[in-house]
Amino acid sequence: MMDALEKLIAIEEIKLVKARRCRAVDSKDWELYRACHTPDCKSYALGSDSDPIVGRDAMTASVEKSLIGKTTVHHVHMPEITLTSPVSAEGVWAMEDMLWWEHKGVEHWTHGYGHYHETYEKHDGQWLIASRKLIRTRVDNGTGARPDAMSAGQGA
Amino acid sequence: MMDALEKLIAIEEIKLVKARRCRAVDSKDWELYRACHTPDCKSYALGSDSDPIVGRDAMTASVEKSLIGKTTVHHVHMPEITLTSPVSAEGVWAMEDMLWWEHKGVEHWTHGYGHYHETYEKHDGQWLIASRKLIRTRVDNGTGARPDAMSAGQGA
Amino acid sequence: MMDALEKLIAIEEIKLVKARRCRAVDSKDWELYRACHTPDCKSYALGSDSDPIVGRDAMTASVEKSLIGKTTVHHVHMPEITLTSPVSAEGVWAMEDMLWWEHKGVEHWTHGYGHYHETYEKHDGQWLIASRKLIRTRVDNGTGARPDAMSAGQGA
Repeated sequence: MMDALEKLIAIEEIKLVKARRCRAVDSKDWELYRACHTPDCKSYALGSDSDPIVGRDAMTASVEKSLIGKTTVHHVHMPEITLTSPVSAEGVWAMEDMLWWEHKGVEHWTHGYGHYHETYEKHDGQWLIASRKLIRTRVDNGTGARPDAMSAGQGA
Repeated sequence: MMDALEKLIAIEEIKLVKARRCRAVDSKDWELYRACHTPDCKSYALGSDSDPIVGRDAMTASVEKSLIGKTTVHHVHMPEITLTSPVSAEGVWAMEDMLWWEHKGVEHWTHGYGHYHETYEKHDGQWLIASRKLIRTRVDNGTGARPDAMSAGQGA
Repeated sequence: MMDALEKLIAIEEIKLVKARRCRAVDSKDWELYRACHTPDCKSYALGSDSDPIVGRDAMTASVEKSLIGKTTVHHVHMPEITLTSPVSAEGVWAMEDMLWWEHKGVEHWTHGYGHYHETYEKHDGQWLIASRKLIRTRVDNGTGARPDAMSAGQGA
């Protein structure tokens, strides 16, 4: 059994690995990204009905390939971490992601929202992400650079 | 008196109930929303000068009604939690909310920013939200689907 | 040496001073802003290659002047705090900032993303920000009030 202090330490360490994972994506530090996950981590990037990507090597290769030439921002919020044993945990995070890239001289973007439903495992004294499922709330897509966008309506 | 560990446990539990509350709103889990608040919770949705909505039953009915047909994202950040006793606390959170809905075939949206000023109480061993006041920094409103919005200016 | 509980207390206190600093900026509470920093705090607002602004008095004067007439939102996320001694620490935060202001009857805005790389010091029992460097991921700028911006594409 874990006492209250051990649980708080674990929760903080799990928040840290999640923070590192998001920073790794947005800074394209693929070695750091890989190191945040268990060797057999499962990623259900499109929800639980799809087949997962299995293993941190495959996940790293997949995300690196998908983000070539893209600027990205991944922010996660409001963690709900539950310890299920001294070496395992579950977590839910609200997320927001923004991607920008150029294709044939036109800027494209995606702006999405959702929740990550994850599990974590402690390997050799270190908490790692063991599975990830993303449930989307909304995704907007578009193209074009508009110097006058995003400033609308009744500012207060 | 609470010792330092008890305070950290309380702060983490208060962060958890706030996270659950926001997730409940955006996933429209009204039973979960209700369970995050004290029976006599007060909601000053429009600032402290307005009359509050009183009671979690009335608050739940009000928010459920106001969000019918709307997709919402509520994100809260940077909690400043202060324990005022072993069973009471105050908190300030930065917030951002986005709402989208359709009216007569046109998509409408609201995008707002502000700070929640809240109090919390521990009831039967569980921290709950006891009051909420929202001070807005800015609110933008608009209509229309623009496939080319939100990508502007000097990307770097 | 710090034990695990002392480290968690320090991490929570550092998160608090950062939260207060951002709330101070957006509510233009310059006395609070000043009180979040060490007397000789260094701010590398434009990255590590530029000369820093040195000292909380100069930093406060600079930010106050730069934000006259502007509405701002500064949100920081996913802290990675590392204690380097009982009285010093390092931290990385993801950030997003939005600024709006009017110039010659036209509304202007900036919307940026990046990471703060900071250090912290404990002075007289209180954790304060001792240095700040902002590494930008992307900055968008624009003008004009568009009631129909920001609602784009395949909502889901």
